[in-house]
Order: sequence, then structure tokens, then C-alpha cells
Amino acid sequence: MNAEIIAVGSELLLGQIANTNAKFISTQLSELGINVFYHTVVGDNAERLKSAIEIAEARADLIIFSGGLGPTKDDLTKETIAKHLGLPLVMDDVALKFIEEFFAARGRGMTENNRKQALILEGSTVLANHHGMAPGMLLEKSGNTYILLPGPPKELEPMFQFEAKSKLAALLNDGSVIQSHVLRFYGIGEAELEDRVQDILDNQTNPTVAPLASDGEVTLRITAKADNVEDAWKLIKSKEEEILAIVGEFHYGYNDDSLASKLVEVLIHNKLTISAAESLTAGLFQSELAEIPGVGGTLIGGVVTYTPEAKVNQLGIEKSLIEQCGVVSGECAGAMAAQVRKRFGTDVGVGLTGAAGPDAHDGQPPGTIWLGFSIGDAEPVMHKLSLQGMRNTNRIRTVKFACSYLMRLLIEKGYEKI
Amino acid sequence: MNAEIIAVGSELLLGQIANTNAKFISTQLSELGINVFYHTVVGDNAERLKSAIEIAEARADLIIFSGGLGPTKDDLTKETIAKHLGLPLVMDDVALKFIEEFFAARGRGMTENNRKQALILEGSTVLANHHGMAPGMLLEKSGNTYILLPGPPKELEPMFQFEAKSKLAALLNDGSVIQSHVLRFYGIGEAELEDRVQDILDNQTNPTVAPLASDGEVTLRITAKADNVEDAWKLIKSKEEEILAIVGEFHYGYNDDSLASKLVEVLIHNKLTISAAESLTAGLFQSELAEIPGVGGTLIGGVVTYTPEAKVNQLGIEKSLIEQCGVVSGECAGAMAAQVRKRFGTDVGVGLTGAAGPDAHDGQPPGTIWLGFSIGDAEPVMHKLSLQGMRNTNRIRTVKFACSYLMRLLIEKGYEKI
Repeated sequence: MNAEIIAVGSELLLGQIANTNAKFISTQLSELGINVFYHTVVGDNAERLKSAIEIAEARADLIIFSGGLGPTKDDLTKETIAKHLGLPLVMDDVALKFIEEFFAARGRGMTENNRKQALILEGSTVLANHHGMAPGMLLEKSGNTYILLPGPPKELEPMFQFEAKSKLAALLNDGSVIQSHVLRFYGIGEAELEDRVQDILDNQTNPTVAPLASDGEVTLRITAKADNVEDAWKLIKSKEEEILAIVGEFHYGYNDDSLASKLVEVLIHNKLTISAAESLTAGLFQSELAEIPGVGGTLIGGVVTYTPEAKVNQLGIEKSLIEQCGVVSGECAGAMAAQVRKRFGTDVGVGLTGAAGPDAHDGQPPGTIWLGFSIGDAEPVMHKLSLQGMRNTNRIRTVKFACSYLMRLLIEKGYEKI
Repeated sequence: MNAEIIAVGSELLLGQIANTNAKFISTQLSELGINVFYHTVVGDNAERLKSAIEIAEARADLIIFSGGLGPTKDDLTKETIAKHLGLPLVMDDVALKFIEEFFAARGRGMTENNRKQALILEGSTVLANHHGMAPGMLLEKSGNTYILLPGPPKELEPMFQFEAKSKLAALLNDGSVIQSHVLRFYGIGEAELEDRVQDILDNQTNPTVAPLASDGEVTLRITAKADNVEDAWKLIKSKEEEILAIVGEFHYGYNDDSLASKLVEVLIHNKLTISAAESLTAGLFQSELAEIPGVGGTLIGGVVTYTPEAKVNQLGIEKSLIEQCGVVSGECAGAMAAQVRKRFGTDVGVGLTGAAGPDAHDGQPPGTIWLGFSIGDAEPVMHKLSLQGMRNTNRIRTVKFACSYLMRLLIEKGYEKI
């Protein structure tokens, strides 16, 4: 079975938003083993939508629509499909009741516009919308399968995952399962990683291995097809071993792990508390750790010391140190790490200082970053980065590097890896 | 002139990345007054690409390709177009020299693969690539205009902006100019805003008005076409006045302004310094301010106090206050704001505390956030939010609200608006 995804919406053609729905649906279809051969975006225009449907019917078995199910007069997806297929639109009582109750609960009348959202293509299976008013639909007709989904991602994504996916899998009916697993790498560039595993990439059949780079990290997505979940996993694990034998030193996590989440795991596992003193990153490091649920007893807090005076006043760093070495120095980073650790009474302290850019800072060229790590009473460890990017990219990369480097330091010191 | 954008790349169909190139190009074309009627995504497959080109030629004057210009065997955009149009590929000496020098400077030999990147469609105009190796191309043939651009956004975007755009504008040759201006709104929902300006949206001709919502904010993009820049701006300003007469109270900025950047502007203009004590946001507020260039003498720093003990130890908040009122309270937020202001010696102090979710915190339901604002010696102002979203959305929304609310407080207190 192959698929085409048609996103309906003039805001996409005006460049106001990116077509993240097509990306999401494509990933989901890939997991089901359904090939996607085309994405199409068309505006809120009945003629052009009809034309796009005709083209899709000739080249795809499964056509998935996103958008155009709302209450306004620009919403015309199901009307256009109904007319094209010669099917009436009928009222879905469950959807209608839900919409009526929604407005009643807010003491507002329901307009005719809103009512039309409860219409569905006759003969279609309704896909319930638990996050909005317009139901989705799945319809089989004349050898094609049509799925209609609402435009807003927070409605489309759960509807596809929890309503459409199982129905689609049942239609596929070929008994095989697809499993995917993503390996995450840090500290190696995309071109270099692909080069090292080139043989694996060139000779892939089942499982497939797909590289992807983003934000200074690289991932490899392994997807296996087999008769059952257990066998699919065996294929995946075997391919993972092959890959890690080559580039394992850069591997830090799986799937939706992040450098921050892995660091927090290591800290929690070893019952360590952490604080940070941040200058250029200005709270971003602590904020990233705080995104991880369960970090409560681990991240105690920290300071942002954005000026040299703040470093002296708030952290008790010797004024003479700053006069001699400057704020963009290993000495300053190490002192920040040690001082914040003592002040907050934590096991680990991190100090981040530097010239984020675009200007030089305290005599150091833009992109010069110093990181300090204070672990217990040991002498602080200092590390220098020389980054090339824009100001905010440098801040983000500093945070990522700090997470990765600290994890390595902790493991070197004998703390348990996960 | 109308356009179709064809993105070539199997990674798009696998859902590994979103088609941000189409979004970017669409915005640019919209500014040129060129209508985009279709986006198409097709994989690294010569047959399907040829088919997509034929469909596009029948329905669009201008066809813009992104992707498939690289050195690997999956890169086949220009080869496919060349074959389809019956044009030879010829070597571009400038591009070839650039590629040779790139490899020579790294002490590496150039492979045949890399060499092929210097081939161009005979008769096309070369679009120089200052950020990568593959040149782009612009070609006119048989009533269609073709533009070929490299896939990586950091190559495509500057190439389009600095190489392609002016050539395209010259082709349009109708002497008119297009200008765009975005109004940014906060504190009103998308549906409500559209409802209030519905007449303007329904009756738009020139200028056009396009709404867009994202991340708790709403924007209206005004685009005007005229014989010259001055007249286009008159049209825009007139439409802006019309809009602001209705919803001006929610208007906070233009174009790429953010709530943080506007707050920093107000602080700098009034020569005010700021510090913050953050619990649930854990540094995100300070980090957002630090993204704004020039914030150096304004943001002095702050603390992250992620535990009740840290609030007592680091800020000197009375233990009895926390025992009586809890950490998720107006009293605590106000005390955090006042204490951090005094400790950092700033004009303004902000305190952010609450239950980000998904769990309750200190007896308060998830989504209960208290914000405290200490301006000079005045009694701290406290404000409560009751948010519904996920943990990290609540943190981001708290930061946005803090920026907006603080701006309003400062103006109420008589500080100069910008």
C-alpha cells in the first residue's frame, strides 16, 4: 500500500506555517510499513483541491487529508470530497451532541457554521476528536482509502495515533509488524558519522537505517519488519550492535532522550544534587534540566550572574581573580562552579561563562566559552570551547556540551552509568 | 504569475524533517506578489520526479525545486530536469574551481561525485552558493520558469534571498512593489481576534490581512501592492490604523518583536536594571531576556530557587512565610521578587513560583502560578495564573505573561512607553 498526504490550507501556501502534519503522518505511516510517495499542499480552493484529489487517486492507494474540517467558509475538504465521490454528507449525532454541549457549557449559542462540523461522509467510519469539535473520517471507495483529519496538530496527532492507526493497520492485513528505534549521537558531525557507517547505509535492506542531523546532534533510525514484535526487535538489536561497534563512543541515548534528560538520569541514579552559576547562558542550563520530570530533588537551584559585579557579589568570587584572569577564563568558570556548589550545598556545581557573540567579551573573541565543573571537594575541572555560530546557537550548544561533558566526568569519577 | 514548489527528498516522505524550505520560499514569493497554488514533495526517484514536473508544468508558470543537488547517487534533480527538457548538463567553471579549492584547502582529493555538483543545465543562469558546494540555477523554457535550489536551509535561504529574488522580481517586470508588515498581539485568543476584525478579513483586497496564531500569541500580516514603496506603506499604515482601532489594546509589537524584546526595550529606554528569582521556570525568564542583544547592562542576574529551602537560604525569605502560605502563593512570589531585587541591587525584581504540572505542588493544583513584581520600594504586586496546559507549555506561558504584565505595570507607574 502506498500513500499520498494532502494538506489543505492557504496559510501553508502563504508560508505562515510549516507542514508539520505531513511530517508527523509520514513518520507514523513509516512505522506501519506504508510507503509515502507524495506530499501535496493545496489551498482553500474547491477546484484545485478536486484536481489534487484526482491526481492522488491515480497514483496512491491511501490518501490522507489534513485541514479544512472547521466551521468557516474556507473549510471545504469534506464538501469537496463528497461532491467528487458523489456521496451525501450526513449528520453524525454523537459529534453534533458534543458540539451542542460545548457551547451550552459556555452559555453560548451554537451557530450554523459550527453545526456543519458534525456532518460526515455517508458510509465513512467516524474518528472521534477528543481535542476539538470536528470528527475525522475513514472511507474506502473504489479501491482507494481516504482519511480526513483536522488541521490543528493537537487534534490531528492524537486522532491519528489513537483512532486511525489501528484501523489502518487492520486494513493492511498482512500480519507483519514494523518496529522502529532511534539511536542518538553527540560529539560527531553528520557527514563524519555517515562516512563511518557508510557500508551499513549502502547495504541496508531490513532493517533500514536512516540518518538525520539536527541542532548539533545526529540520529540513526533503525526500522525492522518481521512476523512478530520479538523478531523485529531481534533484527533491530543486531543492527544496533553493528552500528555501535563502529560509532558507539558517540552514542548517548535513544528515541526522545536528550543530553539533559540523560544527565538528570545519571544524577538521580547516583543520588547527586546539582546547582549552576550561569553567565552567557543566563539560566538556560538550569531551565533545560527543569524540563525533565522528576528533577525536583536533584536540581536545587543556582544563580545567573550576568555582570562581573554580580559574580563577585552573589558568588563571593575574589575580585582579584576577575581582575587578573577576566570573566571569560577557566579560573572564573572553575570559581563559579565551586562557589555555587558550596552556596547551594550541592554535590555538583557547574559554571558557564563566555562571549556568546556577536561581540568580543572581556578581551576574548566571540564564541570563546569556558565551562567549570565542581564535583565534591575535588579541584574544579575546566574546559574551553571555541564556537563559530550565532549568539543563541552558541548558548544552546554550550548547554548541550555541559550536559555531555559532565556526564563523562561523573562516569570517569566512578559514578554509575545507567 | 503563479508558482509550485517541489521539494525533492525521501527524508521528507519518511517524516524525518518538515518542509521548512517550502514555508520559507512561500513567504518570499508572497512578498513578491507571486501566488503559490501547490506544494509537492517527491522522493529521490527519477520517475516520480519527472511525473511531478509534468503535473507542475501544466498548472504553474514558476516551478521552484529544493534538494537533490548534492554529490550522492540519490541527488538527481538536475539530471531528471535535464532529461525531461532535453537539455545537456555542462560544467560551470566557477563552481568547479570553488569545489576544487574547497578540497585542496583540506588536503583532500575531490571525488567524481563532488565534481558532478558543478554541472549546470545548459542555458541556465547560475545562482552562486556561498554556503555550500552546489550552485543553484534559474532557467526559462517554453513558457515555464524553473529555479533549482540546494536542500539545506542554510544554503537555500541566502541563495534565494540574495541570488534568486532580484532575478525573479525583474522577470515579473510589472513595476509594482509588495510590502509586508506584521502586527503582533498578546492576551487575546485567535478566534476572538478574528471575530473582532471579521469585517476587515472578509472585505480585504489590497492590502491583504492574514491571521496566524502560535504559542499563545496572534499575528496579523498586512501585505500591500503599489507602484512604489511609499504608496505601499501608506496602504499598510491605513489598514493598521483600522485594525488597531478595534484591537489595539492587545497590540504589543511588530514583525520579529517578542514580548521579551519589548520588555528589554522598555527597561533600557528607562535605564532600569532587572533581576529575577525563579522556581518553576528555573531560569527560562532570565534566559529569554538574555537572548536580546544589548541586554548586558540591564539584566544583572538572578537566582533559581527550585526547593523551599533554597528560597529561604538563597533569598532570605522568612521560613515562617513559607510555612504559613506555602511556596505556591502570592506572598511567596512577592517576597521572592522583593528579596532578589534587594540582593542584586536592581530597580526591578521578578518572582515566579508555581505548580507547572503534571502534579500538584505544595497543596496547589497543577497550573497554579503566582508572579511577583517588585518595582523600587513599592509594595510588590502579585498576580495569579491558572493554566491548563502541559508542564513545559506552562513554563513558557508564565514567562510570556511575566514580560507582558511587567511592561504594563511599568507604563502604569509612569515609565515611558516606546
